[in-house]
Amino acid sequence: MSRVKVAVLGATGSVGQRFIQLLDNHPYFEVTHLCASENSAGKTYGDVMKSRWKISSDIPAYAKNIVITTPDPSKTSGAALAFSGLDASIAGEVESAYANAGIHIISNSKNHRMDPKVPLLSAEVNASHLEVLDSQTTKGKIITNSNCTIMGVTITLKPLFDRFGIESVMLFSMQAISGAGYPGVPSMDILGNVVPHIGGEEEKAEIEPLKCLGRVENGKIVHADFPISAHCNRVPVFDGHTVCVSVKFKQKPSREEVLSAWKNFSGEPQSLALPSAPNPAILYREEEDRPQPRLDLNTGNGMTTVVGRLRPDPILDWKYVVLSHNTIRGAAGAALLNAELLYKKNFLG
Amino acid sequence: MSRVKVAVLGATGSVGQRFIQLLDNHPYFEVTHLCASENSAGKTYGDVMKSRWKISSDIPAYAKNIVITTPDPSKTSGAALAFSGLDASIAGEVESAYANAGIHIISNSKNHRMDPKVPLLSAEVNASHLEVLDSQTTKGKIITNSNCTIMGVTITLKPLFDRFGIESVMLFSMQAISGAGYPGVPSMDILGNVVPHIGGEEEKAEIEPLKCLGRVENGKIVHADFPISAHCNRVPVFDGHTVCVSVKFKQKPSREEVLSAWKNFSGEPQSLALPSAPNPAILYREEEDRPQPRLDLNTGNGMTTVVGRLRPDPILDWKYVVLSHNTIRGAAGAALLNAELLYKKNFLG
Amino acid sequence: MSRVKVAVLGATGSVGQRFIQLLDNHPYFEVTHLCASENSAGKTYGDVMKSRWKISSDIPAYAKNIVITTPDPSKTSGAALAFSGLDASIAGEVESAYANAGIHIISNSKNHRMDPKVPLLSAEVNASHLEVLDSQTTKGKIITNSNCTIMGVTITLKPLFDRFGIESVMLFSMQAISGAGYPGVPSMDILGNVVPHIGGEEEKAEIEPLKCLGRVENGKIVHADFPISAHCNRVPVFDGHTVCVSVKFKQKPSREEVLSAWKNFSGEPQSLALPSAPNPAILYREEEDRPQPRLDLNTGNGMTTVVGRLRPDPILDWKYVVLSHNTIRGAAGAALLNAELLYKKNFLG
Amino acid sequence: MSRVKVAVLGATGSVGQRFIQLLDNHPYFEVTHLCASENSAGKTYGDVMKSRWKISSDIPAYAKNIVITTPDPSKTSGAALAFSGLDASIAGEVESAYANAGIHIISNSKNHRMDPKVPLLSAEVNASHLEVLDSQTTKGKIITNSNCTIMGVTITLKPLFDRFGIESVMLFSMQAISGAGYPGVPSMDILGNVVPHIGGEEEKAEIEPLKCLGRVENGKIVHADFPISAHCNRVPVFDGHTVCVSVKFKQKPSREEVLSAWKNFSGEPQSLALPSAPNPAILYREEEDRPQPRLDLNTGNGMTTVVGRLRPDPILDWKYVVLSHNTIRGAAGAALLNAELLYKKNFLG
Repeated sequence: MSRVKVAVLGATGSVGQRFIQLLDNHPYFEVTHLCASENSAGKTYGDVMKSRWKISSDIPAYAKNIVITTPDPSKTSGAALAFSGLDASIAGEVESAYANAGIHIISNSKNHRMDPKVPLLSAEVNASHLEVLDSQTTKGKIITNSNCTIMGVTITLKPLFDRFGIESVMLFSMQAISGAGYPGVPSMDILGNVVPHIGGEEEKAEIEPLKCLGRVENGKIVHADFPISAHCNRVPVFDGHTVCVSVKFKQKPSREEVLSAWKNFSGEPQSLALPSAPNPAILYREEEDRPQPRLDLNTGNGMTTVVGRLRPDPILDWKYVVLSHNTIRGAAGAALLNAELLYKKNFLG
Repeated sequence: MSRVKVAVLGATGSVGQRFIQLLDNHPYFEVTHLCASENSAGKTYGDVMKSRWKISSDIPAYAKNIVITTPDPSKTSGAALAFSGLDASIAGEVESAYANAGIHIISNSKNHRMDPKVPLLSAEVNASHLEVLDSQTTKGKIITNSNCTIMGVTITLKPLFDRFGIESVMLFSMQAISGAGYPGVPSMDILGNVVPHIGGEEEKAEIEPLKCLGRVENGKIVHADFPISAHCNRVPVFDGHTVCVSVKFKQKPSREEVLSAWKNFSGEPQSLALPSAPNPAILYREEEDRPQPRLDLNTGNGMTTVVGRLRPDPILDWKYVVLSHNTIRGAAGAALLNAELLYKKNFLG
Repeated sequence: MSRVKVAVLGATGSVGQRFIQLLDNHPYFEVTHLCASENSAGKTYGDVMKSRWKISSDIPAYAKNIVITTPDPSKTSGAALAFSGLDASIAGEVESAYANAGIHIISNSKNHRMDPKVPLLSAEVNASHLEVLDSQTTKGKIITNSNCTIMGVTITLKPLFDRFGIESVMLFSMQAISGAGYPGVPSMDILGNVVPHIGGEEEKAEIEPLKCLGRVENGKIVHADFPISAHCNRVPVFDGHTVCVSVKFKQKPSREEVLSAWKNFSGEPQSLALPSAPNPAILYREEEDRPQPRLDLNTGNGMTTVVGRLRPDPILDWKYVVLSHNTIRGAAGAALLNAELLYKKNFLG
Repeated sequence: MSRVKVAVLGATGSVGQRFIQLLDNHPYFEVTHLCASENSAGKTYGDVMKSRWKISSDIPAYAKNIVITTPDPSKTSGAALAFSGLDASIAGEVESAYANAGIHIISNSKNHRMDPKVPLLSAEVNASHLEVLDSQTTKGKIITNSNCTIMGVTITLKPLFDRFGIESVMLFSMQAISGAGYPGVPSMDILGNVVPHIGGEEEKAEIEPLKCLGRVENGKIVHADFPISAHCNRVPVFDGHTVCVSVKFKQKPSREEVLSAWKNFSGEPQSLALPSAPNPAILYREEEDRPQPRLDLNTGNGMTTVVGRLRPDPILDWKYVVLSHNTIRGAAGAALLNAELLYKKNFLG
């Protein structure tokens, strides 16, 4: 069975690099085009990235000799799908151009996330939202994934939301520097320091989970309805966002019920045995000081959401800690899982 | 006017070192005795500390030639007051022995903190609690200061509590490694990492502010009555605990009312112009990404509590960020300020 | 073909943990015994290590249920070989006891390293030194590997030493914290800091390469004869020792000759295709700012020595930078490669 | 006595910020003009720097209300001297324009450093080089200071060079991130990492000490004549360059002679009691693990050069470790000391 030809848009950026790494020898997809800015166009990916590749394994061999083009559908003919790690300043327009040209877009950018006809897809959480793709009038469809900080949090909320209902959620994040891309955070700002502010992050954290946990009505996604309060912080950690969560439920679950909900949680990625599907989707660690980025980051190849420290909250009901790999589960890996879901469910034609 | 002779108990530890630094050339106090374990006793402080002094300024000259003794009142005769940075494993017993011997104890240890006859004193917050000293039956009195994490938080809550009443508080801390003393946190646990657990810390954070904000009834301190929920985390920062705070009030203040309450806050340390009193007690920074440990740690010589990011909380009422210097404002500096208050109010005889 | 039964001595320490990880599903060896101190003896490895396992992948399943014993040959019967990551304070005696009992010792400890009848074995460099094992009078033989800092350096020197002769070598190391084991370096000493001293390290760095590069005469190893000067430093890096090297040669090679010597270097591990043999043994990176721990540490699963920045030295002849993974190539991985060499050359009976 | 009016060129950059901090309440100089790029011109320094000031004490009050101009002599009339922290891309031209306009330049930039008529001045080392100012044909004179990395090294070499003669020097640096300015080093490149390359740094380190240690002949500076080999590395330290040094001498000094040469070293800044002159100029620490950035950085307000670990070198003669504060002693503080020297020696008219 031949693989689907795909392009990577924003191929030189942090998310683009992860796409290229994760797509190495992928069973469903074959990368045929790499797209970046005018500065890089016309050169091979290997030449351009010589001193810009920031992942601790080499550039995959397949990518080195691909000649970069600009992200323009007319220059990536043959590709049926494009993974987009484009900067938000151009993602909106370029992604729409691809969709118009009949090429599906799997985007990690924020531009189309809040469109009620665009799934904000976390494959285990809301595969049913793919239903709204019919509402998109373009031949190519746009699917987005959520912000890296709340991806893991939403996964932990999903089984609790379904069983117990949620009244409110407080989040406190400690986010890795890789979340800001490259060059991103200057070392003088973060070495031995904490920065209690990340531009636009709290706004996303307070709304995106509500869309992921929403339902489809008349071809549009309607948000879940409960308040979220987020405190977002940058810490000197390379990869891995750690989030402290306190939740108030509609029906009060016991500790065992919460743990059981997480333990038994799985979704279409697991039932379809998608290549990037983690197993388990959620891992609860019993140690009193876990999860930690250094020890738990690579659980399930960076796709498992790791949880720990479930304990009663004196104000809301339960509190716990979530860790997820921000550039894998929170970005490129999540997008790839979304694409695998589309492939397996025959959305790619 | 002659200075009061004082001893430092636990002089070789992290808090002891800070005491020794802050007491250099102090106008009220003269360090005459340094006390540590049997291993160090009989040697000069300078010899013992050659490779153990961890503050980035040299050991004060006065301390270098003092011969260390064990922490025993019979060996520190002449001292009218003792600063205790003793380990909790022995602090309870030793401090009681000093009190029995008629020597006042200014303690940073946790052992006596919850005794209703012992002030958990933060000089700006609850100087009135000194009233309970009369209830202590020993000739020497014991005064404690609160845990380093919640010291700054309590200072920010005090003027809000007095004016608006508090219904609930959520805290999320990112605590510096120096809070664990030396050798303390192994570098393999924290370099480039976050540890979402500090033993016993959340328990202290959820109760100590209530005692500080309490009132005196019949010679005992009665706690304030509202729930606190704390998530405590260790981060790779050297000095400076950053705490994200969300508060629900009884009477809803406006943003201006909160800012005004902080701006106008001062206490006896300021009115008595104590040597270690910061001015202002609370500094609110307008920048959107402050406070930060690296930039704001030394505000007011590490004694000012720095606040920022006041904004509405979608679940409680207001949220903000607090930074305080954990080994100065949160430990030795706070204790010294307490001692200065006692001195100036003639509690030291 | 049945696997050789092996014990791991010092199984709870940093090197022991690496042994256990690397021996998971090993084709030649089967771990049957795990040995540690009295405190741990009698408990399962999984229970003891719950909060002490510091490698970012879980404890291998095979190890979790092994009941720990003390490192005593009478308690590890059945094992034909023991990997020793024992602390130097007891390694000398315990390892001798094992050798006397007829159990071969593959040791990462320093105690027997300087014995002229004990190979200081780096499998690519001096496999021929195994010849001296006949001089050992015990039935069990002792093989050691060199210090983590100079392991990679010696590998880079070997092909140059053979072809061009060496007159002198200057080394400047920047060593990772994991080299000091756990709890090892206190975070207060190294976070955002550099410590220009590591006890005993320069002494080892100035002599061990000479033994590795030596020759066998009359059943004993005679050291190579040239001076080495070492400056050893601790830096806030988790894994990976980076060493700057300047070398003066007897016969002056061109740049191409040096690069060619490295490129063509391989030894018995490669020709015998040992499971842990890296390929290539040495990788030269052309980028001007490499090698770096973060990007190059895992080259060849942490077994390849990565080199860069070859350039003329105004005082000696050539200078360059070496990176090797200190707990894999510099410790447990090197020891395992040594054991694989013994196995394949039928030294294990 | 009225103070000399001065301008700071490049006032918004890292070095410029240090100038502004160090010039607060200076007895000789009064800052009247702050110069930066077109983007900042016309706004007050306080407004422009609100989120760009990176020193951990507030912007001095005097600077906040100064309206920034571009660095043009016609816009800074009244200033008799200008401190330049300009970027090398424009420093050459702008500094020459100032000199032509009769305004003296104290520059931290590299552009004019190698001109034989321009002193590369380290006030304790080569005050006698001021003699060449007469050879400069402009009315305003240009004085530069050396690169931050070798400033401290050169100070330690000076007394040894004078007494014993030097045959060769090997340097190995571990340099702080602040040396690259702001935003400078991306955190993804340096957090938990080491980068064994800094563009152009080794070239400067191998030549600038030779100019500083040179002599004046016919109005020009003639370089000292011995080879230097430098390995320059970036490490995750905020402030403070640590350099390992090995030296070969013409006449072999004893350990005591080296220590004595350092202990007795002082220069014109000390004899003239200049405000920024450190006392001592060089401090030798006896502890086996010093100097360290965290503990020794602020010795002498960051102006003292701290040395330790003097020991025999098996190849050259002696080896040791030097620490200096790269943005104070290695940049703005050194430049200020140079200006104070000019002032006191009546070079400023």
